[in-house]
Amino acid sequence: MDAASTAWILAATMGVSLMVPGLALFYGGMVGARSILNVVMMTFGAVAVTAFVWTLFGYSAVFGDSYGGAGLLGDVAAYPGLGGVIVEDPAATLPPALVAVFQALFAAITVAIICGAVVDRVRFGPWLVFSAAWVTLVYLPIAHWVFAFDSADGAVRGGWIANTLAAVDFAGGTAVHINSGIAALALILVLGKRIGWPGQPRPNSVPFAALGGGILWFGWFGFNGGSALAAGNSASVVLLTTFNAACAAMLGWLLVERIVDKHATTLGGVSGVVAGLVAITPACGAVSPLGALAIGLAAGVACASAVRLKYRLGYDDSLDVVGVHLVGGVLGTLLIGLLADPAAPNGRTGLLYGGGFELLGVQAIAVIAVLAYSFVITWVLAKVLDRTIGLRLPREVEEEGVDVVVHGERAYDLDGHVHAPLAGIAAREQEVVASAEAVITDVPTAARD
Amino acid sequence: MDAASTAWILAATMGVSLMVPGLALFYGGMVGARSILNVVMMTFGAVAVTAFVWTLFGYSAVFGDSYGGAGLLGDVAAYPGLGGVIVEDPAATLPPALVAVFQALFAAITVAIICGAVVDRVRFGPWLVFSAAWVTLVYLPIAHWVFAFDSADGAVRGGWIANTLAAVDFAGGTAVHINSGIAALALILVLGKRIGWPGQPRPNSVPFAALGGGILWFGWFGFNGGSALAAGNSASVVLLTTFNAACAAMLGWLLVERIVDKHATTLGGVSGVVAGLVAITPACGAVSPLGALAIGLAAGVACASAVRLKYRLGYDDSLDVVGVHLVGGVLGTLLIGLLADPAAPNGRTGLLYGGGFELLGVQAIAVIAVLAYSFVITWVLAKVLDRTIGLRLPREVEEEGVDVVVHGERAYDLDGHVHAPLAGIAAREQEVVASAEAVITDVPTAARD
Amino acid sequence: MDAASTAWILAATMGVSLMVPGLALFYGGMVGARSILNVVMMTFGAVAVTAFVWTLFGYSAVFGDSYGGAGLLGDVAAYPGLGGVIVEDPAATLPPALVAVFQALFAAITVAIICGAVVDRVRFGPWLVFSAAWVTLVYLPIAHWVFAFDSADGAVRGGWIANTLAAVDFAGGTAVHINSGIAALALILVLGKRIGWPGQPRPNSVPFAALGGGILWFGWFGFNGGSALAAGNSASVVLLTTFNAACAAMLGWLLVERIVDKHATTLGGVSGVVAGLVAITPACGAVSPLGALAIGLAAGVACASAVRLKYRLGYDDSLDVVGVHLVGGVLGTLLIGLLADPAAPNGRTGLLYGGGFELLGVQAIAVIAVLAYSFVITWVLAKVLDRTIGLRLPREVEEEGVDVVVHGERAYDLDGHVHAPLAGIAAREQEVVASAEAVITDVPTAARD
Repeated sequence: MDAASTAWILAATMGVSLMVPGLALFYGGMVGARSILNVVMMTFGAVAVTAFVWTLFGYSAVFGDSYGGAGLLGDVAAYPGLGGVIVEDPAATLPPALVAVFQALFAAITVAIICGAVVDRVRFGPWLVFSAAWVTLVYLPIAHWVFAFDSADGAVRGGWIANTLAAVDFAGGTAVHINSGIAALALILVLGKRIGWPGQPRPNSVPFAALGGGILWFGWFGFNGGSALAAGNSASVVLLTTFNAACAAMLGWLLVERIVDKHATTLGGVSGVVAGLVAITPACGAVSPLGALAIGLAAGVACASAVRLKYRLGYDDSLDVVGVHLVGGVLGTLLIGLLADPAAPNGRTGLLYGGGFELLGVQAIAVIAVLAYSFVITWVLAKVLDRTIGLRLPREVEEEGVDVVVHGERAYDLDGHVHAPLAGIAAREQEVVASAEAVITDVPTAARD
Repeated sequence: MDAASTAWILAATMGVSLMVPGLALFYGGMVGARSILNVVMMTFGAVAVTAFVWTLFGYSAVFGDSYGGAGLLGDVAAYPGLGGVIVEDPAATLPPALVAVFQALFAAITVAIICGAVVDRVRFGPWLVFSAAWVTLVYLPIAHWVFAFDSADGAVRGGWIANTLAAVDFAGGTAVHINSGIAALALILVLGKRIGWPGQPRPNSVPFAALGGGILWFGWFGFNGGSALAAGNSASVVLLTTFNAACAAMLGWLLVERIVDKHATTLGGVSGVVAGLVAITPACGAVSPLGALAIGLAAGVACASAVRLKYRLGYDDSLDVVGVHLVGGVLGTLLIGLLADPAAPNGRTGLLYGGGFELLGVQAIAVIAVLAYSFVITWVLAKVLDRTIGLRLPREVEEEGVDVVVHGERAYDLDGHVHAPLAGIAAREQEVVASAEAVITDVPTAARD
Repeated sequence: MDAASTAWILAATMGVSLMVPGLALFYGGMVGARSILNVVMMTFGAVAVTAFVWTLFGYSAVFGDSYGGAGLLGDVAAYPGLGGVIVEDPAATLPPALVAVFQALFAAITVAIICGAVVDRVRFGPWLVFSAAWVTLVYLPIAHWVFAFDSADGAVRGGWIANTLAAVDFAGGTAVHINSGIAALALILVLGKRIGWPGQPRPNSVPFAALGGGILWFGWFGFNGGSALAAGNSASVVLLTTFNAACAAMLGWLLVERIVDKHATTLGGVSGVVAGLVAITPACGAVSPLGALAIGLAAGVACASAVRLKYRLGYDDSLDVVGVHLVGGVLGTLLIGLLADPAAPNGRTGLLYGGGFELLGVQAIAVIAVLAYSFVITWVLAKVLDRTIGLRLPREVEEEGVDVVVHGERAYDLDGHVHAPLAGIAAREQEVVASAEAVITDVPTAARD
C-alpha cells in the first residue's frame, strides 16, 4: 500500500465533500428568496440517496469486471454492500474503501449538479426517485466507460472510453460535466419553464453564490488532484492547471460582460470560476500552465456567451447548468485535442504540439457517446417519471413559494420577533400554516409584476 | 516517524478546525436574528479558553501516565506548557505536537457543542469560565478514560475505558457526544427555559444552518478519519462509513418529518446529517458500509423522534443538543454491540455477527459511566457558578436581544444606510446606544405576540 | 521525491485556496450592504490576475537564480510560462509544480489583503491593473528576499533576508503581512477617505465576517503548516502554535474591548483571531506553545489598540488592514527576537532564552527593509495609476452604492418578488437601470444622516 498517496486521497476526499454545501450555496444564492431551501434540499437529498445506490450496487457497476469485457457496464454483484472493500488489501496501492468513498462523492455531485437547471418546479420526493434512478441508469454506465481502467494484470476489465478508445478525461469532463449538463437539458425539456419565465426573482444572496463558488473551487482541487490517485508530480501539476484555468475563466467571463453588458458582475465572476474548473476537469493532467490559462480564457468567454442562448432558444436552464457544465465540459474535453502537451502527466500530444488530428478525433467520440447516451436515457427516464409519479410541482405551489409549501420553512427571518407560538409538536403544523399565510399575504399576485 | 500518517493527520487537523465556524453557523442560523452573534461568540470563545487549559495541563491530564495506573486521570504535570511536545521524537509514530493540536480541537469542540442547548440566556464572561472549568473537570478525565491507550511498552498507562474495559469508541461517541449531550441537559436544568418558551423566534437563516451542517460534515471526516491516527485502510473505511451514516440519517430524519409533520424540512435534513455523524462517531471503525447505513437510518429516526420530547417533558433544549448528541451518541455506542463486523478495522464482533452479548455489555458500561460522571459534575459545576458569579442573563437582556445588549452589535444591517456617526472611539459607545434604542423601538414588547 | 510531504503540501495548498472566499467574506461582511459585492470582486479579481503574473514571470522572479547573486530579485526568465515545472524532477523533494501553485496562492492572497483598506472607493478595472503591477513590482522582489533559500548545492541563489541576513520568517510575516499592511497605508494615503468618514454604514453581515474569519483560520493552518514544506515535526509544531496564538489573540482583543468599550464584540473576537494568526505567521516555527499564547495575547491587545488610531490620526483604513496586518506582522516578527525557543523547529534563540539582542536586531532589519521598500514603491505606483488611469471612483458612484453602479447587482433580495422582467439579454441592461433607480429612490441623500 502507498501510504503517502492514501494520505493525499483521504484529504482530497474530505475536500470534495465540502463541494456538497458549496454547490448548495452556489445554487441557493442565485435563486429567489422563496426557493433557496428547496435547492439546498435537492442538493443534499441527491447526495443522500446516492449513498444507498452506491453501496448496494453502484461501486460494483463502475469498478466491477466489465460484462463480457465489452467495457459497457461493470458487474453489479462484484462488491455486494461494499462488504469486501473494507478488508485491508496489501496488494492494492490505495485502500479499496478509499476509492469507494472518493468515487461515491463523484456520483453524488454529478447528479446534484443537475438540480440547478430545474429549480422552483420539481417535487421533492420524486426528485429523490429521479436521483437514484439517474445515478443507476445514466451515471454508473458512463462512469464505468470513463473511470474504470483495466487492472494491471488484466483480470478486471474496465470501460471502453478509458481503455479501448483511450480518450483523455482526467477527472470527469465527460462522466461528470457533459453528463450532468446534457441530462439537465433533457430534464428541462420534459419539465418546461417556470411560470413567468424569463421574468424571475433576483438572486436572494449573491454573497452566498460567491461563497459557494469559492468552496467549489477549494473542493475541485481535491476532485481533480485526487483523480491522480497518488501524491506526486501528477497531482501537483493538476493543482497548478486547475488554479490557472479558474483564474483565467473568471477574467474571460468578466470581459464578455464588460463588453456586452457594461458591468462585470459578481455572478459572472464566480460563474467564470466554475466554468474554468469544469473545462479544466478533463484536461488538468494533459496541458501546460499556459495551456490551462488558454482553456480557462476560452471557457470563460464561451460559457459567458452560451448562457445567453437560453433566452433566444427559449429553454429555462435556471442556473445555467447547460451553459456552464455542458458547454465547459465539451470545450475542455475537445481542447485537449489541440493543447495536450506531451510534457504534462498524461503524456499525450495535441494538434498544436504536432500530434495531428487523432487525439481530437478520439476526444470527439467520447464527447458524442456521452452526450447521446445521457440525453436519451435521461429524457426517457424523466418522461416516465413525470407521467407516473409526477415530477412537476403544481402551479399554485410555484406561485406561493416552494420553501414554505413544500418544506414548511422560510429561509430567513431577520427581525427576530416571535411570530407564532410553538406549543409542542402540534403547534408545528400551525406555524407552517401561519408562515404560508404570511407569505401569501406578503406577495399578492399583483406584486409579481 | 510515519511521515505519510503525519501528512494525513495534519490535513485532518486542518479539517477539524473548520468545525469551529461550522458549528457556530449551524447553531447561529437556527436561533432568532437577535442572538446569532452571541451563539457565534460562545462557540469561538469556548474554543479560545480551551487552548489555555489544554496547553497548561489539559493534554497532560489526558495523555499523561495514569495516576496510580487507575485509568482515571493522567498526570497533569506530565507535559508542562506543552514545552516537551515540540521536540522531535524519532521513536514516535506521529509527532507529539500533532497529537496535541488534533486533540486540542476535540476538547474545544466538545465544550462548544454544549452552548447550543442554552442559547439566549447565558452571560458571556461566565460562559467562558464555565467552559474552562468544564473542560478541566469533566472533559479531561473522560477523554483520559476513552482516548488514552496504554503505550506499547506499558510505560505510560492510559484510561480504563480504552484499556481495561476495552469498549469501542473510535472517535468520541462517549467522550465527545454523550458527554456534551448529557452536560447540556444538566446545564439546561440549572439555567431553566428561555422567556416565552416554547414560543420562540424562527431561525434567522436556515441557509446558514445548512452551510454549517455541511461544514461539520466535511470536518467530521477529519475528526473520525484522523482518529485512525494513520493513513491506511482504517481511515479509509472510516470515511466510507461516515459518509454512509450521514446520508442515511438525513433520509431517516426526513422520513419521520414527512410522516408526522407532512413536511420534510431543511432543518430536519441537516439535523439528520449531524445525528448520523454523531452516531457513527464511535462506530466508524467497527461496522460495515451496510452497518453504517443502518446506524444512520436508526439515528435519523431516533433523533427526529427524540427532539420532540422536550416539548412534552418541558425542558428547553434550544437547538437539540440532548436530542441529537446525547441520543445519537448513546445509540451509536450501543449499536456497536449489535453491528460490529469482525472484518472492519476494530475487528470486534457484535451480537448480530455471532459475538454474543459481551460487547453490548461493555459498550453499555462505557455509556453509563460517562453519562453519570458528566451529568453529576456538570450539574454541580453549573449550580456553583450560577450561585456565585451568575450564569443566567437578566430577564431584560433576553427581552431586548442579547446581541445588542451584550455584544453591542446587530448581526445584519441590510439597507446600507449610515445610521449613526462614528466620530472616533468615543462615538462607538454612542453607536451602541443608538443600536440598542433602534432595536428596542423596532421591537415593542407588544410585537412579541 | 518525498511522497508524504507532497501529500501534505497538496492538502495544505487546497486549504490555502479556501482563504480566497474566506477573505472575501471576512471583508465583505464588514462593509455596508451596498458594497459587499465589490469587496468580493476585488478579492477574487486580485487572485485572478495574479495567476497570469505568476505563470508568465512571477514564480521565476521569486525562485529563479538571484541576479548577480545579490539576493534582490530572481531571474524572471528562469521558468518561462512555468513550462518546465510540470516535468517530474526526481531530484526534487517536492514536485516543482506544487511549490509553484502553493506560492501562487501566497502572492494572490497578499495583494488581495490590501483591498480591505480601501473599500467603497476604488474603480474595479484599475484595481486589477494595480494588483498585477503591485505583485510584479512589490511582492515578487520581497518574496524573493524572504522565501527563496539558496539551493543545497549553491547553484541557485536566493534572497538576502532568507540567506545573508538569515532572519526568521516562517510563513510570511514580512513578505505577506507587513508588506500588505504597509502597502495598504500607502494606498490609503493616495486614495483618501470615503465620503462621510468616519460615519459609515454598519457591517451588513457580522455572521459573514465571523464565518470568513473562521475559514481564514482553517486556511492558515495550510498557509503556516505548509510553509514547513514537509510532513513532519516542524509542520506539527506550527499547527499547535498557530492554534494557540489565534485563541489567545481572540481573548486579548476581547479583553481590550471589554475594558474600553464595555462590550466584547463578535467583530472584535474574529479580528483578534486574524491578528493572532498574522502575528504567529513569522513565528510559528520559532516559539514554544506558551510563547505562542504570549504572542497571541500581545497581538490581540496591540491590534485592538492600534485599530483605534485611525480615528485619531485621520486615515480611513476601512477594515483595519494596517491595524491588523501591519501591526500584527511587525509585532510577531520582532517578538521572535525575544521569544525564539531553541527547542522549536527553527532552532533559534531569542533574548528571553539567553540569545542576546542579535536575533532581535536581525528581525528589525528585515522589518525595516520590507516596510521601506513596500511603502515607497506602492505609494509611487498608486500615485502613477491614479494620475493616469484613475484609481478613485467618482463621488456619485460612492454615494449611490458601488455594487449597483459598478457591478449592476445588489447583494441581497430577500423578499423573493419579481421586480423587473428579464426578457432576454437586452432586458439585463433594463434590470440594471431599474435596480439603480430602486436603490437611489430607497436611499435619498437626506436619509444618510
